[in-house]
Amino acid sequence: MSVTVFAFNESDILAKSVASHLHADFSCVDIHHFPDRESCVRINPDDVTDVCIVVASLYDPDKKSLSLIFLSETLRDYGAERIILVAPYLAYMRQDKRFKDGEGITAQYYARLISRYFNALVTIDPHLHRIHHLNDIYSIPTKVLHAAPVVADWIKDNIEQALLIGPDSESEQWVSDLSQRAKAPYVVLEKVRYGDRDVNVSVPHVEKWLQHQPVLFDDIISTGKTMIETIRHLKQAGLSPPVCIGIHGVFSDQAYQELLATGAERIITTNTITHPSNAIDVSHLIVKGLQELLKP
Amino acid sequence: MSVTVFAFNESDILAKSVASHLHADFSCVDIHHFPDRESCVRINPDDVTDVCIVVASLYDPDKKSLSLIFLSETLRDYGAERIILVAPYLAYMRQDKRFKDGEGITAQYYARLISRYFNALVTIDPHLHRIHHLNDIYSIPTKVLHAAPVVADWIKDNIEQALLIGPDSESEQWVSDLSQRAKAPYVVLEKVRYGDRDVNVSVPHVEKWLQHQPVLFDDIISTGKTMIETIRHLKQAGLSPPVCIGIHGVFSDQAYQELLATGAERIITTNTITHPSNAIDVSHLIVKGLQELLKP
Repeated sequence: MSVTVFAFNESDILAKSVASHLHADFSCVDIHHFPDRESCVRINPDDVTDVCIVVASLYDPDKKSLSLIFLSETLRDYGAERIILVAPYLAYMRQDKRFKDGEGITAQYYARLISRYFNALVTIDPHLHRIHHLNDIYSIPTKVLHAAPVVADWIKDNIEQALLIGPDSESEQWVSDLSQRAKAPYVVLEKVRYGDRDVNVSVPHVEKWLQHQPVLFDDIISTGKTMIETIRHLKQAGLSPPVCIGIHGVFSDQAYQELLATGAERIITTNTITHPSNAIDVSHLIVKGLQELLKP
Repeated sequence: MSVTVFAFNESDILAKSVASHLHADFSCVDIHHFPDRESCVRINPDDVTDVCIVVASLYDPDKKSLSLIFLSETLRDYGAERIILVAPYLAYMRQDKRFKDGEGITAQYYARLISRYFNALVTIDPHLHRIHHLNDIYSIPTKVLHAAPVVADWIKDNIEQALLIGPDSESEQWVSDLSQRAKAPYVVLEKVRYGDRDVNVSVPHVEKWLQHQPVLFDDIISTGKTMIETIRHLKQAGLSPPVCIGIHGVFSDQAYQELLATGAERIITTNTITHPSNAIDVSHLIVKGLQELLKP
């Protein structure tokens, strides 16, 4: 079976790496933006195979989604029979219910839209909260991949005496999982309440960890507010500046700069969204997922 | 039958005017933009009627279309049975064929997308070129309205001794139509070729028109290049600075400033796209179109 990997950017390292490990061709999609703010996609028709893989990280989806739809339609026009969307970062997973009366449930709507134009979806750690499985909203086959193993490997290989930090009790589940994989200890911060308004956050048994390298982890770093707050608590407790790891580095506004300014030792992300902080490659993970999906 | 007119902007004068003339309620749709560049629409559920009209000018469609889809889905969730899109300016009408191999035919794809989410479409003078009827690409009922009568009325009411100018022979058809309606003469510029590279443009019988007020007209003013060139020809011929009229004032980049700088006496547009040049109201036109569409 011949397969081609399409991406919107000639320098999309992740897409090229996926193509290379799959032994598939890479084909760059050209987008032309007209002066009237419309756009047109253009593919190389010779590259269209029965199965086409589109790698597109869906950060900034309002701007990208129409081009994505146009790409799917163009590939179909040129004979593609099965179009698989690899969205290393999947958009519109947060609005999974009406928080206020009259709001749209955009997680559902976006899933329905993507399901109309693609035959399958591969993604990495989508923000699943009230929706427990992608197939509750996507009507196409989906494959959810998890970055925890590659993140743990990175911690093992790059950090001596790592101490994983869970910012609150809700995070214990994933921080303990990462701790087992990285073979590193973890602590969960404790909220200590002195009165109605007087809440302090403490690091249990702080004296044990003064020589360790704290590591903060979250699935998405967007505004960075939780991490920034946690960095302050660690500072107050006398711990070393932490390494901050996010799977998806969304970094809205000045989040990246603010995290560094608050005292992050380093900020590390996977390459699900291209960013200078990318240090953990997820291409092998995606290739494995695709191979399972493509199995006859 | 109760009808509500929805629009994305509280100050959408056109939408409010349509609602008022239709004796329908106006309801503003709220869009919230999150820091991670996703957005959510919110409507007032009490305003949802069986028939909902959405007024949305589709200039800058790449940015707007996802919100439009989300709005349609939200209205359906709240019980709307028939959702009519009024797009005073309709997007993606230019790419009506593959100009280069491998390109998408975005006119078709966009029509298919809109047809999935709306039950009918009302628009004003869409840029129909190789596609002759909207229903060649739209699978929902469409109603195409023409601004020529209201443009002609504006010319009659506001310009003394108007002389309509057709920039080339292709434009003769619409310029002669406008001339009849406005009861004003017209001329079509003539290309005079002196040699292979030496082409001049002349105004036939120029001496007759020196006291007239030239009026340039085009369906869309986007880059403004044709109009700018025509203004230069009129200047060279010794005519007065022209009034430039466009139905849809797209004005990409600095087009508006450049037109004024080249010597446009005034620039006038209809309010299909909100712009300081709006002087011709199309709301009555839209109301008439909607009334025909809504007739039982």
